[in-house]
Amino acid sequence: MDYSSQSIELHRRSRGKIAITSKVDVATKHDLSLAYTPGVAAVCLEIGLDKQKSYTLTNRANQVAIVSDGTAILGLGDLGPEAAMPVMEGKSIIFKEFADIDAIPLCINSTDVEDIIKFCKMIEPSFAGINLEDISAPRCFEIFERLENELSIPVFHDDQDGTAIVTLAAIINACRVTGRDLKDLSVVINGAGAAGIAIARLLIHAKLKEVVLVDTQGAIYEGRPGMNSMKQKIAAITNRRQHKGDLQSTMVGTDVFVGVSVGNIVNAEMIKGMNPEPFIFAMANPNPEIMPELAYQAGASVVGTGRSDLPNQVNNALVFPGLFRGILTSGITKVTAEIKLAVAVSIAYAITPTRNKLMPTMFNKDVVHHIVEVIAHTVEGEHCVGDVCELDEMLAAMVE
Amino acid sequence: MDYSSQSIELHRRSRGKIAITSKVDVATKHDLSLAYTPGVAAVCLEIGLDKQKSYTLTNRANQVAIVSDGTAILGLGDLGPEAAMPVMEGKSIIFKEFADIDAIPLCINSTDVEDIIKFCKMIEPSFAGINLEDISAPRCFEIFERLENELSIPVFHDDQDGTAIVTLAAIINACRVTGRDLKDLSVVINGAGAAGIAIARLLIHAKLKEVVLVDTQGAIYEGRPGMNSMKQKIAAITNRRQHKGDLQSTMVGTDVFVGVSVGNIVNAEMIKGMNPEPFIFAMANPNPEIMPELAYQAGASVVGTGRSDLPNQVNNALVFPGLFRGILTSGITKVTAEIKLAVAVSIAYAITPTRNKLMPTMFNKDVVHHIVEVIAHTVEGEHCVGDVCELDEMLAAMVE
Repeated sequence: MDYSSQSIELHRRSRGKIAITSKVDVATKHDLSLAYTPGVAAVCLEIGLDKQKSYTLTNRANQVAIVSDGTAILGLGDLGPEAAMPVMEGKSIIFKEFADIDAIPLCINSTDVEDIIKFCKMIEPSFAGINLEDISAPRCFEIFERLENELSIPVFHDDQDGTAIVTLAAIINACRVTGRDLKDLSVVINGAGAAGIAIARLLIHAKLKEVVLVDTQGAIYEGRPGMNSMKQKIAAITNRRQHKGDLQSTMVGTDVFVGVSVGNIVNAEMIKGMNPEPFIFAMANPNPEIMPELAYQAGASVVGTGRSDLPNQVNNALVFPGLFRGILTSGITKVTAEIKLAVAVSIAYAITPTRNKLMPTMFNKDVVHHIVEVIAHTVEGEHCVGDVCELDEMLAAMVE
Repeated sequence: MDYSSQSIELHRRSRGKIAITSKVDVATKHDLSLAYTPGVAAVCLEIGLDKQKSYTLTNRANQVAIVSDGTAILGLGDLGPEAAMPVMEGKSIIFKEFADIDAIPLCINSTDVEDIIKFCKMIEPSFAGINLEDISAPRCFEIFERLENELSIPVFHDDQDGTAIVTLAAIINACRVTGRDLKDLSVVINGAGAAGIAIARLLIHAKLKEVVLVDTQGAIYEGRPGMNSMKQKIAAITNRRQHKGDLQSTMVGTDVFVGVSVGNIVNAEMIKGMNPEPFIFAMANPNPEIMPELAYQAGASVVGTGRSDLPNQVNNALVFPGLFRGILTSGITKVTAEIKLAVAVSIAYAITPTRNKLMPTMFNKDVVHHIVEVIAHTVEGEHCVGDVCELDEMLAAMVE
């Protein structure tokens, strides 16, 4: 039986994956007098006087909402909110298992930007943070930016920043394995949706030599006609050589390929056109842009994919449990670029990588601990000079 | 230490009362390949083709949203959504303990009728039902009625129908204990909010002789100036004798007092003005309208309150776990008046009542089973003649 039928069978048998459990006893009348009426009235009154006490007298401090409209489910596209639920329940049990966070999937019945923003603002009193998931671009950018400004609790869009952080971590470890330097790398990213644009931003922040995004129309360059506002913005800070052309021509002379769009679009010839011994991160799901074996044969020095059944999985599930645990523990409300850099470094340095074991596995409990620590340190400014936190210093600190 | 400080201490120590747990293993890479990517993609695609499969492949079928805006928390009033959370977490653990239902508290940041309706419609894909809680009257009536028509999943307002059902159950058992007949009873209800109006409606449906509601302006009668639309509607079917006057004058010559407003407003003299051996249900929280001892001294034959530390607690927590389990099991989308009658009867008949043990306790596991069974039977029309289900027949069936 393959993964698909096994997975359907598992879901049918267990009728989904999450359940509620009680943290207190409910066995006697006395238990209920304290957990419910009449005793609970005093707890309500305490919070009524000071809303911040909802963080100590309810489960709020440990509670995150996973909000999706089901428009960009995995690589499957827009299947609607009901169909997003299995992914969100999966995220929820990963949150619980790896970071002991109670994450509630809320798959919602509207794709309207204002509706989704309003929805998130309405649930704010019940949660300590919001994790946006599988909302299609370019709406996801506006929703995220507005919420980051309008909510008082932290918000994170996993498909953007989770993917960006884990990709940077993979590139850092590819450098460690091959003895190369981030600053010398020229990168091509195929896909200019939520993930592609967020990866580009973070790599620029990490001071890689050059980043070029490619979409179905070819390389994105400043002034290209017909681009949405997100692509216009990213065009202004990427592709400084103003290259125009298709994916193959864009890859010529670059060092890293990052694929976050459709599978099976990279061949051996395209890899041979890159600089010697390139890094190939073929992260399209379920089919990578090129299979690892072919990429190695074409000269790649390090290859990763998004799949759990192939070596070197580059998966944002390495990021979100620890990142949220770090956010909730440190009490920050905004995930800055500095925090993203620091988290990428801490994931990379959770192991000593090799070509065939580039990334820590999710079952490596150190990952979450390292992320939590590094967020606390970054918030305290330990890796920062003035207001500027430098990736170099973080890397230097790790090497020490 | 009293209930209040003990309860605050319990909530502080446990940091709230609910948590998420996983129903599947998350111990190996293989586990995750089935519960999450890549296997989960097939589950999403199945649901994408047939949304109804969200009821078998996710936790949806067992999942209820508890939605509150925090405007009418217990008897405490409008303390805001954060302060409502301890009550909703309490309901959630009661749902879980007594009916194995996963109920998610969602305390929301708007009191606008349209916002709340929109919110409930947005979360519909993630839940099998919605339980409205502690939303103040008269908004709760419009919200409930609109949602009952506009949602495809069942909605229940506990403060209305939960209270109405448990009150009718208490009156049925008071009749059984004293050998009286529901049809001979004249009832005064103090309080014309969500609970009072819903109780009046259900008692009329159960064909009691007369029902009169009293609010802060005295008895509600047809044509009384300055009433909201809900009071106007209920005035048209209650107080057929057109009595005008205060609570004391309204109670004269009646058989049952039901209090669902403020405490300490009934005295011995008022009870002495009622018909001989009246039933007194002094359900205001935390202070009853009159303490049981005083009511008995004044001639009451059966007395109940809302409090767990006094005999004969009349609490809607007896209703909602079984009612939702019955709704989810039978697949009905509307809680009809017939179902409410049937549930009241089944709660009453879960025990053989005495004057001092009028109601089953929540820990009586028969209650949930009886409610589930009676809902199934009612849906199948077993207690009905044509389209009309008769309380008489239900009662007769119980006695057999």
